[in-house]
Amino acid sequence: MPAPIRREITGFSNPTVKYLRSLRDKKHRKRERVFLAEGLRLLTDARECGHVPQMLVMAAGRDPHPLVDALEQAVASVGGEIIVTRPDILSKITGKDNPQSVAGVFAEFDTSLAALDRSKATIWLVAQALRDPGNLGTMLRTGDAVGAGGLILLDDCADPFSVEAVRASMGAVFTQRIARATWQEFLPWLRGGDGQLVAASLREAVPYRGAPYAAPCFVMVGNESQGLPEDYELACDLRVTMPMKGRADSLNAAVAAAVLAYEVLAALDS
Amino acid sequence: MPAPIRREITGFSNPTVKYLRSLRDKKHRKRERVFLAEGLRLLTDARECGHVPQMLVMAAGRDPHPLVDALEQAVASVGGEIIVTRPDILSKITGKDNPQSVAGVFAEFDTSLAALDRSKATIWLVAQALRDPGNLGTMLRTGDAVGAGGLILLDDCADPFSVEAVRASMGAVFTQRIARATWQEFLPWLRGGDGQLVAASLREAVPYRGAPYAAPCFVMVGNESQGLPEDYELACDLRVTMPMKGRADSLNAAVAAAVLAYEVLAALDS
Repeated sequence: MPAPIRREITGFSNPTVKYLRSLRDKKHRKRERVFLAEGLRLLTDARECGHVPQMLVMAAGRDPHPLVDALEQAVASVGGEIIVTRPDILSKITGKDNPQSVAGVFAEFDTSLAALDRSKATIWLVAQALRDPGNLGTMLRTGDAVGAGGLILLDDCADPFSVEAVRASMGAVFTQRIARATWQEFLPWLRGGDGQLVAASLREAVPYRGAPYAAPCFVMVGNESQGLPEDYELACDLRVTMPMKGRADSLNAAVAAAVLAYEVLAALDS
Repeated sequence: MPAPIRREITGFSNPTVKYLRSLRDKKHRKRERVFLAEGLRLLTDARECGHVPQMLVMAAGRDPHPLVDALEQAVASVGGEIIVTRPDILSKITGKDNPQSVAGVFAEFDTSLAALDRSKATIWLVAQALRDPGNLGTMLRTGDAVGAGGLILLDDCADPFSVEAVRASMGAVFTQRIARATWQEFLPWLRGGDGQLVAASLREAVPYRGAPYAAPCFVMVGNESQGLPEDYELACDLRVTMPMKGRADSLNAAVAAAVLAYEVLAALDS
């Protein structure tokens, strides 16, 4: 295989740098149908899951590393571009003071519900109107840990392809399926096959420990400040309640999803 | 009781506004030994827990509300100051685009280990070198939910009194005890009384479900990227492991603390 061809960029005003920086903005990501991910470990995870960036951006002057070589080869073999630039330019691109030494531009995935195969996993996570990209990425990371099939984003959620969400997912954005749908699309899809919809709720709920979870189990959490709309809760097959010993009546959304998902995992695994 | 005396501030360059804005900076908070909290619900929680702000800042032109009246009375009764200002100035103070209509300046709490009474609760959370104020606030919120006594911050953690941590704690900063210590201070303190130190670990660990938890149980998590130092793990009385079904080998720190803490709660409650 021939050596990968690298292109060097030394100026902030270079159009490629402008393009890359524009990908921090949802509007531009949407138009280009790509997203940015950073870090050697994350890009290696992506490669091992079959996701190779269209464009690989590397800091000049970094030490050689076999995993970087492997990334370069993979990008070259699919006809992608390899850019070498200054660390401070890379920092501007990813918006991080202490940038990772590599970043990649990936094609956005198909996020249609129709592309999900619910038989592939016993747990699926569902988030409704989740606004915080950190929470969203954390849910992806938790989904990976519990062996979930993916994360279904209902209504107006944060963008799973934002730099913040990708970062918080710690690579799970590449291992978890992601679907986006409205509630009006999701409910008929769910009822068109097997699937138990579960949410934490205070309405006629049973204790979350020992509840009759069934696979495939769809664990749903709601918006950070509003929680789930009442009709969404009422459409659930199972409403469960977690102990709240203090003054607060709710958990952080990503925390609630994780506590519940680990309980479901224990129930379905045993 | 006489009506509280309000002082009106209309300019950004007012020294009080400068003082309030400076509290977004850790250095200034430390020097003044105070911190900022915002939101009517949060300030009401604080008041009901016996924490009254030294200074209450309110947006001009807000609708009357009995809880705001109660706050004003409480502040007046302790000789505190009440400031009325423009919403855009309040927004600058809290650094939030969509500001809450009230904010308060609170005296920092005593965060010495010696002030903790371990017999007050069966669960305590411990974080080591936690860098993200959002994670820290989320741990406080989880601590409140599981009925923990408080959060012990080891080594170089984010500031629990930062606006971000206070916000993420959803008021739990007022219900949970907070202590700060080095590992060298913490371990002798812990061993000076009852207490089981537990951490999630891959080293000679037992499954986290059904592990022999004992009260008071100190649930410890480590730094977001490094995890716990090896000697901290080895000093634990119990090392537990959580299923990791995917590619990742760890959870978000606040998520790990919550999954573990809910397991401990179930074990100690039954």
